[in-house]
Amino acid sequence: MKTTSIREAYNSVRKYSEHICAPLETEDYVPQPVPFVSPPKWHLAHSTWFFETFILKNLIENYQVFDPDFNYLFNSYYNNVGERTLRTDRGNVTRPTTKAVYAYRQHVDACMNDLLESELDDAALSLIELGLHHEQQHQELLVTDIKYILGHNPLFPVYKSDHNLVDGTNTETGFVKIPEGVYDIGFAGEGFCFDNELGRHKVYLHDFEISKSLVINKEYIEFMNSGGYQNFNLWLDEGWSWVNANTVQSPMYWHKINGEWHYYTLAGLQKVNPKAILSHISFFEASAFAQWKGMRLPTEAEWEIASVNLDWGARWEWTNSAYLPYPGFSKAEGAVGEYNGKFMINQMVLRGASVATSPEHSRRTYRNFFHTHERWQYTGIRLVK
Amino acid sequence: MKTTSIREAYNSVRKYSEHICAPLETEDYVPQPVPFVSPPKWHLAHSTWFFETFILKNLIENYQVFDPDFNYLFNSYYNNVGERTLRTDRGNVTRPTTKAVYAYRQHVDACMNDLLESELDDAALSLIELGLHHEQQHQELLVTDIKYILGHNPLFPVYKSDHNLVDGTNTETGFVKIPEGVYDIGFAGEGFCFDNELGRHKVYLHDFEISKSLVINKEYIEFMNSGGYQNFNLWLDEGWSWVNANTVQSPMYWHKINGEWHYYTLAGLQKVNPKAILSHISFFEASAFAQWKGMRLPTEAEWEIASVNLDWGARWEWTNSAYLPYPGFSKAEGAVGEYNGKFMINQMVLRGASVATSPEHSRRTYRNFFHTHERWQYTGIRLVK
Amino acid sequence: MKTTSIREAYNSVRKYSEHICAPLETEDYVPQPVPFVSPPKWHLAHSTWFFETFILKNLIENYQVFDPDFNYLFNSYYNNVGERTLRTDRGNVTRPTTKAVYAYRQHVDACMNDLLESELDDAALSLIELGLHHEQQHQELLVTDIKYILGHNPLFPVYKSDHNLVDGTNTETGFVKIPEGVYDIGFAGEGFCFDNELGRHKVYLHDFEISKSLVINKEYIEFMNSGGYQNFNLWLDEGWSWVNANTVQSPMYWHKINGEWHYYTLAGLQKVNPKAILSHISFFEASAFAQWKGMRLPTEAEWEIASVNLDWGARWEWTNSAYLPYPGFSKAEGAVGEYNGKFMINQMVLRGASVATSPEHSRRTYRNFFHTHERWQYTGIRLVK
Amino acid sequence: MKTTSIREAYNSVRKYSEHICAPLETEDYVPQPVPFVSPPKWHLAHSTWFFETFILKNLIENYQVFDPDFNYLFNSYYNNVGERTLRTDRGNVTRPTTKAVYAYRQHVDACMNDLLESELDDAALSLIELGLHHEQQHQELLVTDIKYILGHNPLFPVYKSDHNLVDGTNTETGFVKIPEGVYDIGFAGEGFCFDNELGRHKVYLHDFEISKSLVINKEYIEFMNSGGYQNFNLWLDEGWSWVNANTVQSPMYWHKINGEWHYYTLAGLQKVNPKAILSHISFFEASAFAQWKGMRLPTEAEWEIASVNLDWGARWEWTNSAYLPYPGFSKAEGAVGEYNGKFMINQMVLRGASVATSPEHSRRTYRNFFHTHERWQYTGIRLVK
Repeated sequence: MKTTSIREAYNSVRKYSEHICAPLETEDYVPQPVPFVSPPKWHLAHSTWFFETFILKNLIENYQVFDPDFNYLFNSYYNNVGERTLRTDRGNVTRPTTKAVYAYRQHVDACMNDLLESELDDAALSLIELGLHHEQQHQELLVTDIKYILGHNPLFPVYKSDHNLVDGTNTETGFVKIPEGVYDIGFAGEGFCFDNELGRHKVYLHDFEISKSLVINKEYIEFMNSGGYQNFNLWLDEGWSWVNANTVQSPMYWHKINGEWHYYTLAGLQKVNPKAILSHISFFEASAFAQWKGMRLPTEAEWEIASVNLDWGARWEWTNSAYLPYPGFSKAEGAVGEYNGKFMINQMVLRGASVATSPEHSRRTYRNFFHTHERWQYTGIRLVK
Repeated sequence: MKTTSIREAYNSVRKYSEHICAPLETEDYVPQPVPFVSPPKWHLAHSTWFFETFILKNLIENYQVFDPDFNYLFNSYYNNVGERTLRTDRGNVTRPTTKAVYAYRQHVDACMNDLLESELDDAALSLIELGLHHEQQHQELLVTDIKYILGHNPLFPVYKSDHNLVDGTNTETGFVKIPEGVYDIGFAGEGFCFDNELGRHKVYLHDFEISKSLVINKEYIEFMNSGGYQNFNLWLDEGWSWVNANTVQSPMYWHKINGEWHYYTLAGLQKVNPKAILSHISFFEASAFAQWKGMRLPTEAEWEIASVNLDWGARWEWTNSAYLPYPGFSKAEGAVGEYNGKFMINQMVLRGASVATSPEHSRRTYRNFFHTHERWQYTGIRLVK
Repeated sequence: MKTTSIREAYNSVRKYSEHICAPLETEDYVPQPVPFVSPPKWHLAHSTWFFETFILKNLIENYQVFDPDFNYLFNSYYNNVGERTLRTDRGNVTRPTTKAVYAYRQHVDACMNDLLESELDDAALSLIELGLHHEQQHQELLVTDIKYILGHNPLFPVYKSDHNLVDGTNTETGFVKIPEGVYDIGFAGEGFCFDNELGRHKVYLHDFEISKSLVINKEYIEFMNSGGYQNFNLWLDEGWSWVNANTVQSPMYWHKINGEWHYYTLAGLQKVNPKAILSHISFFEASAFAQWKGMRLPTEAEWEIASVNLDWGARWEWTNSAYLPYPGFSKAEGAVGEYNGKFMINQMVLRGASVATSPEHSRRTYRNFFHTHERWQYTGIRLVK
Repeated sequence: MKTTSIREAYNSVRKYSEHICAPLETEDYVPQPVPFVSPPKWHLAHSTWFFETFILKNLIENYQVFDPDFNYLFNSYYNNVGERTLRTDRGNVTRPTTKAVYAYRQHVDACMNDLLESELDDAALSLIELGLHHEQQHQELLVTDIKYILGHNPLFPVYKSDHNLVDGTNTETGFVKIPEGVYDIGFAGEGFCFDNELGRHKVYLHDFEISKSLVINKEYIEFMNSGGYQNFNLWLDEGWSWVNANTVQSPMYWHKINGEWHYYTLAGLQKVNPKAILSHISFFEASAFAQWKGMRLPTEAEWEIASVNLDWGARWEWTNSAYLPYPGFSKAEGAVGEYNGKFMINQMVLRGASVATSPEHSRRTYRNFFHTHERWQYTGIRLVK
């Protein structure tokens, strides 16, 4: 990417984060209701800290940090960058205020714009690009964390009544056939990718048929009505324990009110739309549903090869592939090397993108990953037979 | 109390709660860092809910509640009043906003002032008086919960730089001797008291000598320096477990910085003042300190009888009395009966009052109570030999 | 006590512990199903360790310990005697075998008998006497721990079919009236007592009436059938949490089989005898039952004064007194000082004795104590009005 | 397999389980020190229950079960076979006694021998064969669980002084090169395999070099001495949390005594042999060690293809492959279908076999699996570059 175009990208991405937060009240920026949900204030500050720490501090001589305490407060998981607030304590840090965090953003944005006036080398440009993709990842988390905070409030407050984050429907039906053979997967070509999409390599696929459409609420309600949550034969052993320990009876955000299923959406509490694409289910639920259908989930390689023929992007789609390094994967030197590699264990890969994914932040080779019980993301199911 | 004087009292008490919160930022109203600390916003709403639920709903015909959801959100522990937000979830409820809670207060205050124009019967006046004492109890909790929220922020923000909540020193020394005999304790006479201060009854006391002064930081530092936290012989068995499980090394809010003891106060982080009265210690620490001194803590009856000769009010003083009903104690009918009686187990009585206690909210017969490990209140030690 | 009579006492007490264990299979000696239940093997070894550590090691020159590892394995809670097996790990120590523990007992008994041939001073005799009372306390724990181990086995094995540990019925009815006044409580006179029964002191009692009989199963079933476990107004707040967290529906060891209440007894599973004295209830249940009856539990002072007129000894009777030191209580020097004093917090006093208490191990002044949720002892209810 | 040869196999396998237990004391059969370790008594009974439940009950008309309670007590994880003892409670079930469990074995063995006199169909023979392989799996667990029970006893008792389960050394050195290409993996041919080894399928492997030898203690001590357990950059994120939460400093069973590393072996406590093959490490430790060496662990496909050129069988070797179904995997109907499939999540594959694996219970296609933190099996490391 060139310096000029990256400046535009920088300002556009940075503005988009604040756009997401525009409908919030000051109080909404604060809490961390569960450890995996971060306060919106924290996302805004942390994505800024990334630019300050990895770009400004390194490239501007005698750069004055905005506030020396912020490194402690807004480092996420980079052990190489020092001590940090315990992840579980983020919701208790009422100061700096939201206002101060916006001032922090302004300060860093001004310095970044100054910097982007000058000619930067490729290494610097790469790091800035990484910072933007990093912020886009946090934009999706901002949306899903806001949904979690508001959606677990007994008042079910509306985030925005006109947004497009509610439903999504399938436009295609039927199955795509893929023949057996050796295929190449992983990122190739120009442009940005994360390190976990490399190296491009060969895989052998056996023939399979993959659905063009994602599972919709109507189908999932059939699963529920047929006793899906009560039949242990459909579940992985850890999934069955999870169902019982948490008395799971439905996807996240679903509530049965006067005998009818409702769900919380960012536009408020609504009746479940039977034609809308199913969302907010765990890997365990995806796996049990597939078992019930007599089908299975795709592997990530199958998904990637088939994706040119698929209609995707509404939900992150659980695959039956564990998140592990590709052949030839190597992590970068220094703190940035902590970005992906150290999480390559005990998580499952999700492919595609969701209605909450930021514009221009999706690729056929993109590898998202979550633990098998997590479901506060816009997750869905695609079947293979 | 008469209706006119109760109206003055009402407005003065209600205003004082808001006065306590005046220095806060909006964000400070939100979090609940640990289950026993409630969000300031919650205190403001809950004390208002008390008047709406027990007074306005009962006395005003066709009273329109401000918001029907608030009963669910701001009931504390009254099972008789229905379902309520889980105590541990109070910090995640970002809506209603702080502004809306202030509007709630205004609404209820207006209705209460209207009501107080009319002639009210004794039962109603008693309940309003209870509501005011209830709000004063929450005022002390507001102060200590704000201290907890700000004092556990790595930035140690200042609440108010000119307040008087920091230190307190003793003005008297020496011991008072009390002769053996039968004494009367418990509330008697006119005016308000809580149900747990009744009935007034006789106790037999053996002779004892009680210190006129409270333990100061200097003395406690001597205990620490002599290995007090390492010597199991000084501790109750559960206290020793508590010390080890939590690696307790000092009172709450104390930090050793460059070899010197500091503590967080509402005026910010300061060097420990050796002459100031010790604060923020658990019953376990009070008991171990007394053991180290070769003395003991007073019983609550001893304290009450001796108190006319004591200089008290700076700290809640741990006694060696368990919080149990007095002879003849009976709880009120209905929800108000849940006020005190159901907590009479596994807690210890504290007597006196503290620098955070609201004006006119202390009595020689007042029985405060906390669990043996709790120390976020302004708690201190008085010795008996 | 004289040396000759103490030798008889020694051999009789020691034999009785082994008599209790006679019906056990080797396997029954091993497990610790919950932290508060110790393996029978451990009780046999620990009570022996007490004599070896506090008597033989001190009084016999060049005494050779039976096995130097045993101090680590069989110390219970004496910090002054060094490191020990974690309390929660006692059930995993399969070696030394039961046979080896019996050999340990034989070795110590032989040495003790030799020692008891010689003239011993008063301090030594006192310690031996303490050791015997200590072993008697463990005899009651042996019985209740065996009951716990066998009673939580899905097969409900029989311990002994002809024992007398099953039921107990009241022989008297009605209430005793005690007039108001100053009374003396605590141990006085000759013979042994534990340090917690001292010093004898005055208390002021208000008049009260105390039941001559203990609550029977029939009455408790009425409480259960009337919704006692569902009505929060009857319960202390911590009791209500305990009921809900543990879904408590009946006393310990009760099982509803085909609509009829059964309980596990040491003679096996039996139908609940409605006339038998209620057993195995927590303080919380005792308190809720009393509340339901419109009465209350006695204080320990009331119990002690009234006891000359009562029929007692079948159950440990929960009092509404916290376990705290008497005026003038002081703990002994050294390790023996850890015997009682350090447990004087967050427990309630029980008075009387039970069907599992060893012969000659009860006194009107005896202060037993357990936490409010514990119910594996033979605990019961006596009411006061 | 034919009926005659299967009878021989049956008796030989069944006898071997009892041979493993021969050195135990009765007490050793009882405890379950942690949930993943089962009591030896339970293994002996459960493997017998398998034959009774799946063979005798189905094939012998009017078969009288040995004890109807045993189904509840000795079912492991087969939901289709009904309720069972909670996994965590196995150590508290002192009855049936060990003697009774041996009688149970005798009874089932007699019935099985009778049955094996008759002509059985293929389905029956297959199930019996599965039962034998199942028992062999429990034989390895018997060895490792006995090691856990004795090895966590502070006395470090000896299991057998002459056994061969201690060390193991490498006999080869250097690396094997495998060229890139399409390979077939999974079970093929005659004989027994578990369902998880099917279906045989093609994989694409990139070229790699794999070590002929396993990592030895000396190498691992170098890793430890170089600060391996302190350098977060070597660890997976969950591994680093595991190290810190459990203060892991060395492989399981290692103890530093007077500055020298010892380990518990089934022959007792010994000095660590530097040349012996490393054992008892978690996947996290294997991964960190490989990272430190600048190499990686093999995938299970790489291992299987290379294995013809490797010297294996001393340790279960952690691979970097998640335990997931092969293409075409399908689980059997009924309870036996719970054997493997439901565990295919959040575990890693181990290949090879160990010194504790029963004779004739290993195959190049065998897929063992454990969670990433588990290390009470004989686990080791083979490196790939």
